[in-house]
Amino acid sequence: MGRIYKEIDFCITPDRLSRQESLFHVANGYIGVRGTLEEGVPSSFDTMRGIYLNGVYDTIEMKQAEKLCNLVTSKDVMFNAVDAQSVSICIDGERFSLLDGEVRHIERALDMDAGVALRKVDWISPSGQEVVIGFRRMASFDIRSLFTIDISISSPSFSGVVEFISESRGCVPGYASHLDPRLPAEGEVHTVPLGCILSDDGGVLLSRTKGSGIEVAAAISAGCGNAFDSEVSYDEQAHSLRHVARGRLEPGGSIRFVQYAVLLDSRRSDHPADDAISIMRVCKGRIDELYAKQRSFLAAFWKKAAMHIEGDEELDTAINFSIYQLLQAAGNDGLCSMAAKGLSGEGYEGHYFWDAEMYMLPFFILTDPESARRILSFRYRTLDAARRNARLLGHRQGALYPWRTISGTECSGYFPSGSAQYHINGAMAYAIAGYHAATGDDDYLCREGAEVLIETARLWISVGNWHDGHFMINGVTGPDEYTCIVNNNYYTNAIARFNLMYAGSVISRLAISHPEVLERLGIGSEEAEEFRKAAECMFMPYDDGLGINAQDDSFLQKPVWDISSTPEGNLPLLLHYHPLFLYRWQICKQADTVMAYVLFPDIEKPDVMLRSFRYYERITTHDSSLSACIFSIAAARLGLTAEASTYFGDSLLLDIEDSHGNTKDGIHLANIGGSYLALTRGFAGLCLEEDGVRIRSPLIPRGWIGFSFRFSYRGSLAEFRISQDAWSISIIEGDGFPVMTDSGTAVVVGLDSPLRVRL
Amino acid sequence: MGRIYKEIDFCITPDRLSRQESLFHVANGYIGVRGTLEEGVPSSFDTMRGIYLNGVYDTIEMKQAEKLCNLVTSKDVMFNAVDAQSVSICIDGERFSLLDGEVRHIERALDMDAGVALRKVDWISPSGQEVVIGFRRMASFDIRSLFTIDISISSPSFSGVVEFISESRGCVPGYASHLDPRLPAEGEVHTVPLGCILSDDGGVLLSRTKGSGIEVAAAISAGCGNAFDSEVSYDEQAHSLRHVARGRLEPGGSIRFVQYAVLLDSRRSDHPADDAISIMRVCKGRIDELYAKQRSFLAAFWKKAAMHIEGDEELDTAINFSIYQLLQAAGNDGLCSMAAKGLSGEGYEGHYFWDAEMYMLPFFILTDPESARRILSFRYRTLDAARRNARLLGHRQGALYPWRTISGTECSGYFPSGSAQYHINGAMAYAIAGYHAATGDDDYLCREGAEVLIETARLWISVGNWHDGHFMINGVTGPDEYTCIVNNNYYTNAIARFNLMYAGSVISRLAISHPEVLERLGIGSEEAEEFRKAAECMFMPYDDGLGINAQDDSFLQKPVWDISSTPEGNLPLLLHYHPLFLYRWQICKQADTVMAYVLFPDIEKPDVMLRSFRYYERITTHDSSLSACIFSIAAARLGLTAEASTYFGDSLLLDIEDSHGNTKDGIHLANIGGSYLALTRGFAGLCLEEDGVRIRSPLIPRGWIGFSFRFSYRGSLAEFRISQDAWSISIIEGDGFPVMTDSGTAVVVGLDSPLRVRL
Repeated sequence: MGRIYKEIDFCITPDRLSRQESLFHVANGYIGVRGTLEEGVPSSFDTMRGIYLNGVYDTIEMKQAEKLCNLVTSKDVMFNAVDAQSVSICIDGERFSLLDGEVRHIERALDMDAGVALRKVDWISPSGQEVVIGFRRMASFDIRSLFTIDISISSPSFSGVVEFISESRGCVPGYASHLDPRLPAEGEVHTVPLGCILSDDGGVLLSRTKGSGIEVAAAISAGCGNAFDSEVSYDEQAHSLRHVARGRLEPGGSIRFVQYAVLLDSRRSDHPADDAISIMRVCKGRIDELYAKQRSFLAAFWKKAAMHIEGDEELDTAINFSIYQLLQAAGNDGLCSMAAKGLSGEGYEGHYFWDAEMYMLPFFILTDPESARRILSFRYRTLDAARRNARLLGHRQGALYPWRTISGTECSGYFPSGSAQYHINGAMAYAIAGYHAATGDDDYLCREGAEVLIETARLWISVGNWHDGHFMINGVTGPDEYTCIVNNNYYTNAIARFNLMYAGSVISRLAISHPEVLERLGIGSEEAEEFRKAAECMFMPYDDGLGINAQDDSFLQKPVWDISSTPEGNLPLLLHYHPLFLYRWQICKQADTVMAYVLFPDIEKPDVMLRSFRYYERITTHDSSLSACIFSIAAARLGLTAEASTYFGDSLLLDIEDSHGNTKDGIHLANIGGSYLALTRGFAGLCLEEDGVRIRSPLIPRGWIGFSFRFSYRGSLAEFRISQDAWSISIIEGDGFPVMTDSGTAVVVGLDSPLRVRL
Repeated sequence: MGRIYKEIDFCITPDRLSRQESLFHVANGYIGVRGTLEEGVPSSFDTMRGIYLNGVYDTIEMKQAEKLCNLVTSKDVMFNAVDAQSVSICIDGERFSLLDGEVRHIERALDMDAGVALRKVDWISPSGQEVVIGFRRMASFDIRSLFTIDISISSPSFSGVVEFISESRGCVPGYASHLDPRLPAEGEVHTVPLGCILSDDGGVLLSRTKGSGIEVAAAISAGCGNAFDSEVSYDEQAHSLRHVARGRLEPGGSIRFVQYAVLLDSRRSDHPADDAISIMRVCKGRIDELYAKQRSFLAAFWKKAAMHIEGDEELDTAINFSIYQLLQAAGNDGLCSMAAKGLSGEGYEGHYFWDAEMYMLPFFILTDPESARRILSFRYRTLDAARRNARLLGHRQGALYPWRTISGTECSGYFPSGSAQYHINGAMAYAIAGYHAATGDDDYLCREGAEVLIETARLWISVGNWHDGHFMINGVTGPDEYTCIVNNNYYTNAIARFNLMYAGSVISRLAISHPEVLERLGIGSEEAEEFRKAAECMFMPYDDGLGINAQDDSFLQKPVWDISSTPEGNLPLLLHYHPLFLYRWQICKQADTVMAYVLFPDIEKPDVMLRSFRYYERITTHDSSLSACIFSIAAARLGLTAEASTYFGDSLLLDIEDSHGNTKDGIHLANIGGSYLALTRGFAGLCLEEDGVRIRSPLIPRGWIGFSFRFSYRGSLAEFRISQDAWSISIIEGDGFPVMTDSGTAVVVGLDSPLRVRL
């Protein structure tokens, strides 16, 4: 059994392959390797043959059609750092290819307990030689700069020479689709070669990015244990390193080729080439030991993060797949974060958005607070860049986090649905609050968190203005990008209010416990009072006639878009309508007001939230993958079990079923994080608070036997379980904690005192 | 005396020269030649050495920083079509230059009666030869494809050889400033050479634009009557045509070199080279005859367009200068219009905006209705492009004129302050109404005007929506570009209401007189009724508390920008603040609500208009040159004589004083048209209506003796005069017309029955 996601094919098609490149990518938060075929594909295939390094970016020019003051004119891009996944195999001189000979069976699997991606091909060569070729890929969690490929070939009948030709290239182009005329025909090469250090059984390819000047070292070592012949060579022209190994395969026997790639960059290392060589020395020849370490890393991981859906195997596999993707994506060193597509593809150029904090981070807060803190650190490290961004946008105080970035600078080219999404600032506050509630980590608050909170709060004071006794926030864009640059976006005002209030309360607390921190940050009680006052008087749009929260001041005076009469072919709307046209309608790309309800379950009376939910449901296309999961949570919290289940299914299977048609560009990591939240925050009604764990009226979808998941709270590891008739919390490790339930009283659960509540 | 604008210098400076290149450009509505120096300038000077052809454009790529649906990705640009203004002069082997030898006197003049630009230089060569060199340039109004340079040299003392070397180039770069690091160092060459047809005394350079494929032919012929030696040669490499002529100059005598350039393009001619040769045959050797024709053209022009300010010579010259610039800019063949900078420079890339109809056309409606009709025709010819533009912006019906264009397609790259300015549609309706009121030209309405009116009206129905019994227009941008994408912009709603109402009334009229026109246009009474209903119920923002019209629904809930505390160096704001920052303030780049008052003097009660005027005056920076003139008119109409005078002065002298600091990029033609309007519509209170000429309480600035101007109405030529104690209208030619005055009764004025009213 175990946690395995598997697909079986009997032939190969371009569409399926490009989707599998995303689904079967391997990553460890630093290295991400697309699930391409080692042996390559014909040029007619649309492949994205990439290896990406988290936080390693090039900087390129971004021309603005018109020059307006302080518009963004350059951007970071994640790029294809190296090709260390190309190995040709010749069986008695016949080159292995899925498009030659006969393919009898292809099995691809992501083994999430072993931490490897597997491919097994039963193949008969054109001349009739029958072989089974197994590929095993690993991005090591133990040594984050290591990626390995392990190829085994066996045959019941073949006797002869097998040749492995590995070709690693230091400067490779990014994705270019010959199928999409809108994309350039040739992918861009973002690096220039800096040379190669050759050794007996390998070498280090050294390159440097053209714009950002980051060096990338790729140490490659490869070999075949029972080879009778092997060689290593460097081609300066191609900046490529070639390993050739030849061995004999006898009937019933097998032959194995293992390649180690150690990748390092100059953001992490002062001497990436030297360090890569040192690490290679440690790794080389120890593949099975490395597999064991990978397995034990994952055992520890799943112990803390296990989640199961009982009664639906497909969903159970899918939720494990989802959790594993979050693990693969998460940068773990403070120099990087989690990209919209993780490290699985070049979609969104590898940028980090608000969803890192809002959709993905909650998983780490619940299961691995130490990782959560490191992920949060990225925003602290880029706080100065956020301050500069705020100045560019005219604000004399505070910091504004960039809508999309790798290095910390704003990389969005179209500010009305980019930089104007000021609500990203609130995502930082919400994440910090969530992390602190789960951990009580005052050290983090003092060192990093308070500064981020105060600077983001200051920005709200600068962007908002007082009018008629209300604090208003004009000229911003909410999460719904089908309506841009509006006044008093409900979601934005809600998250800004939270940001201001939470900053105010942290300041109050630190004023007693750590006054030196406030002194360092130059914040006094007057400013804290300003935060509180703005929060208290924040204008929150509400329409008396409809009894709902308006998405913004003028949203409800626009005509209602009739989704049911929109031709199917016109979805997603953003690909078929000029943005200005969309702005004039009541039409939502994604959860906006409803998102506020999910973050703040007590923000409005239930009847208002229910009416709003029904209202926005009718006009939301879910063209964004950030939407269905939020609607699932909102539905669950409103007691709408059936709707919650449907939205959850849409969300959980999005990539596996490729329902948005673009999984090939990379997996939808925000949606994945949202699926996880749909179970924990949605169905289970779980919320970690400062004074304990709150469970709000949990639900279980009809047809499920039950579901369970583990989470940590203030040092204790716990498990939540629910079946059709009861739910429970039990402590696995630690002293336990108080649990607040609908009954209104807090119950302390401990190792020997689980809590069980009948539904 | 005569109409002459003159500047005298004793040396040359780069700043002054580049400004003079604009002020002393010569143009005839088709050809525009910058007032550069024939002999060239040192490379350290910032010169824009351009010759432009109205309506002749290249098409270039315009990259959008982010790919959104249906964004504009290419644009038209007016380009430097040819260099036919370069003539070197050698006096006894010494090359004439204002930077060598001694310059004793430079006089530059625009003779607006003769229709020529003059430059006279008293120069002593490095070796001490004293000469007077006169340059005379003409863009012929009689033969619109003709541009001439006429150089005369005389000397009291010099005896020797004078050499003229003319070098005309077919493919030349556009403007590039080595002083502005934001601009490319090399100007772009927009044409490729197609060869040259050589003849005895000249040739034709043929080129084709790279993107739009328009051919440009430049026939050049040059000669010196008393030359003892001359030659013509073509350099294929440089695609240049060289004329060299040598003659002797004796003390007291003179020598003259005349160059004819005939420029044609393949939009106007099927065989531009052949036709240029034919036209050249007619022109060559007849320069003095051509001068006479130019003078008689201008005599006829001034007869109809004369305007005088008595008591202030500087203003009188400036207003004549302004009128002459309008004449120079106006395309006259329906294939082109009037660019923001006319044909005087490359600013705004030679694009036509709404100001062509709103600011410049009124002059032609008042003085030369036939030209006005041809200018209007440009929009009829580009109606299909406007329909396509509407479709791109999501509208299933109607036409939306592009915010900036040459060919008729939208060329604005940043749609929030480009395409979103839907009010340009209303400018068409207002222009058509103005033209028809002045002429009663039903033929135009039936052939062209009605279709434009109906298609623009249909667009308003598509963009607006009904809400609470009102017709609302959401998500558009008004004239003030410091506030973008708003709901119910007062100006937009006012002009849309007019557009709908006027379309409705024209339909009613044509239903009786020309039902076949309505049939052809597929418009029925139901749709006309829809127009009327929307117009009647148009929502017009009004703030009860302030008693003013709000610029849009949410304008007054924003904080008020304090202009007085803004550092001088931060103006214009658009160069110093991110647009999103500006959008959040009550701050106006230019007249917006006040503009509506100027167009529709009875739109609100006077006290509302006065309060609004005062309110917006306080928050308007006039960073746009389209603003001061409108404020002058509004002030005049509100009886604020002093304010009207100040704004008028700011407007009238803008280019001459270079008060915006960018006259070097071209003259500000909208402002120039607005200055004219400030006298006619503002001070004189003149409005041509369907049933006669209305004069609303005229004013005269203190300190003036009087002012007067001529205008035409329904076939009669009239003159308005005002002094400090009375105003009058007299008929110069024709049967006369009714004049409505403040007294409320209409008086018919005729040839022998002028109207005189005491102030």
